[in-house]
Amino acid sequence: MEKFQVTILGCGSATPSPKHYTSSQVIEIRGKLFMVDCGEGTQIQLRRSHVAFARINQIFISHLHGDHCFGLLGMISSFGLLGRTAPLIIHAPQELGPVLQYEMDFYCRDLEYQVEFQGFDPDTTSVIYEDRSLSVTAFPLRHRVPCAGFLFQEKPTSDHLDRAAADFYGVPTWDYNRIKDGGDFITPDGDVIPHERLTKPADTCRSYAYCCDTAYNPSMIPIIKGADLIYHDCTYSSRNADLAKKHFHSTAADAARTAVESCARKLMLGHFSARYDDETCLLEEAKQLFPDTILAKENLTVSI
Amino acid sequence: MEKFQVTILGCGSATPSPKHYTSSQVIEIRGKLFMVDCGEGTQIQLRRSHVAFARINQIFISHLHGDHCFGLLGMISSFGLLGRTAPLIIHAPQELGPVLQYEMDFYCRDLEYQVEFQGFDPDTTSVIYEDRSLSVTAFPLRHRVPCAGFLFQEKPTSDHLDRAAADFYGVPTWDYNRIKDGGDFITPDGDVIPHERLTKPADTCRSYAYCCDTAYNPSMIPIIKGADLIYHDCTYSSRNADLAKKHFHSTAADAARTAVESCARKLMLGHFSARYDDETCLLEEAKQLFPDTILAKENLTVSI
Repeated sequence: MEKFQVTILGCGSATPSPKHYTSSQVIEIRGKLFMVDCGEGTQIQLRRSHVAFARINQIFISHLHGDHCFGLLGMISSFGLLGRTAPLIIHAPQELGPVLQYEMDFYCRDLEYQVEFQGFDPDTTSVIYEDRSLSVTAFPLRHRVPCAGFLFQEKPTSDHLDRAAADFYGVPTWDYNRIKDGGDFITPDGDVIPHERLTKPADTCRSYAYCCDTAYNPSMIPIIKGADLIYHDCTYSSRNADLAKKHFHSTAADAARTAVESCARKLMLGHFSARYDDETCLLEEAKQLFPDTILAKENLTVSI
Repeated sequence: MEKFQVTILGCGSATPSPKHYTSSQVIEIRGKLFMVDCGEGTQIQLRRSHVAFARINQIFISHLHGDHCFGLLGMISSFGLLGRTAPLIIHAPQELGPVLQYEMDFYCRDLEYQVEFQGFDPDTTSVIYEDRSLSVTAFPLRHRVPCAGFLFQEKPTSDHLDRAAADFYGVPTWDYNRIKDGGDFITPDGDVIPHERLTKPADTCRSYAYCCDTAYNPSMIPIIKGADLIYHDCTYSSRNADLAKKHFHSTAADAARTAVESCARKLMLGHFSARYDDETCLLEEAKQLFPDTILAKENLTVSI
């Protein structure tokens, strides 16, 4: 299967702490790199990681709190100083457009590559990016300000050709793609060899749901249903459920409940409050409801 | 002597690298904390340092390149989230005022402390901050954009009272301050005890010169003359003098020459290009001209 993986650059909440950078991660799908959120210090983490950051062409910003976007201007500027020429597309709530343009007009006058802004409405569900192999859907979360989650979904691929079977029946190479796409093969003698005998099923389409920052949000369950991995807001433990409610964030139990209800395969907890020296308490709380849970941490890469 | 020290938060140039954060440092003088420059990640470094950052009330920005000011907005925002109530004064080239205000209006609407902007003209020499115990003078450097250096200078203090002598001559305690400030003492018998016999000389006034980013700049020598410590641009070694010239930065030899001509006591090299894996070559180059030279590094504190 082709690579589909998530690398965490920062998973702390609110302000950088000695332990965590603020939100940012890079998703690699079939050779393409996508960044989600860009808190202060993201470019520092990028340089320390093994991410080939010159290949990031699309950045998705969930909402306009500083811990999710204060690293954007510095990264745009540094990409210019490092000689970038490829266009960079920023998908973010519409409101960011004029602010970013104002800042770039002041600080990035000599940029030698194009930064294209594509605003979206975080209060509605819509496909905001699509190419041959995947789509990215933005959907509303429940936060103090308009805030989107993102669902990265592979598109179906063709079935795999069974080379031994194809050779056995004498399928010519120029006919391979038609067979892989569902066609049967007719031999020179007129025998019909069905598609199923010549192929193995395509890989299943994988998906990754980024759900940060949000209170428990049942309205998104149908959208992220069956996700292979969910990254979920886990700012607090249930002991601080009052704070979670007040600030429109989630507890570990909220995150686990979401994973259960979404029939997810795996859950990654993130956006940790700095109050927890040891986040094991969050992990244990979530695992009671949803065993296949892990903690995010800086520089962790998870394959899907 | 009271504390006068410099703590380096970042000493890299242009963009953050795996080795260095971009420019920022904190100067502590007689219990007061001053920040100079604020590149991206400064608040991260502050949290890792032992600097009591809540006591920083004045920030000085040398010029408006991102590696000297991209950390400002995030730090202002985080100070708010961390419950700051004391006003924060930003001294920066005038041009930054409206940009910072625009950004704060967008990102920091709920700030519960006051941020006051005090613009200055980086092309002229002037005292931009003054209190009972020190002054800060901004002076022009030679860079691609208007850029200021900063001279932190202690003010003269009163002489120290010689308690043994004062007791011997029967000086009453209510008269101590007048004696320390230069007065003589007249005994009840009418004898004049001269000031010099009752006191020991005041500490000498120390000074620190921050000279970053700049090409070799002889016009500042009279201003920083006799500085106890100079922090100087040392982006390149003399082997890359062509780059230093092109980008209006200094070589190690330029920095050392400045220290010699200023009759400085000590030189700290900083603002290193990421091209040097090992900055020892820069140190050695400078030491040939000015032996009392050290390399800046993150979290280094130098007492003056």
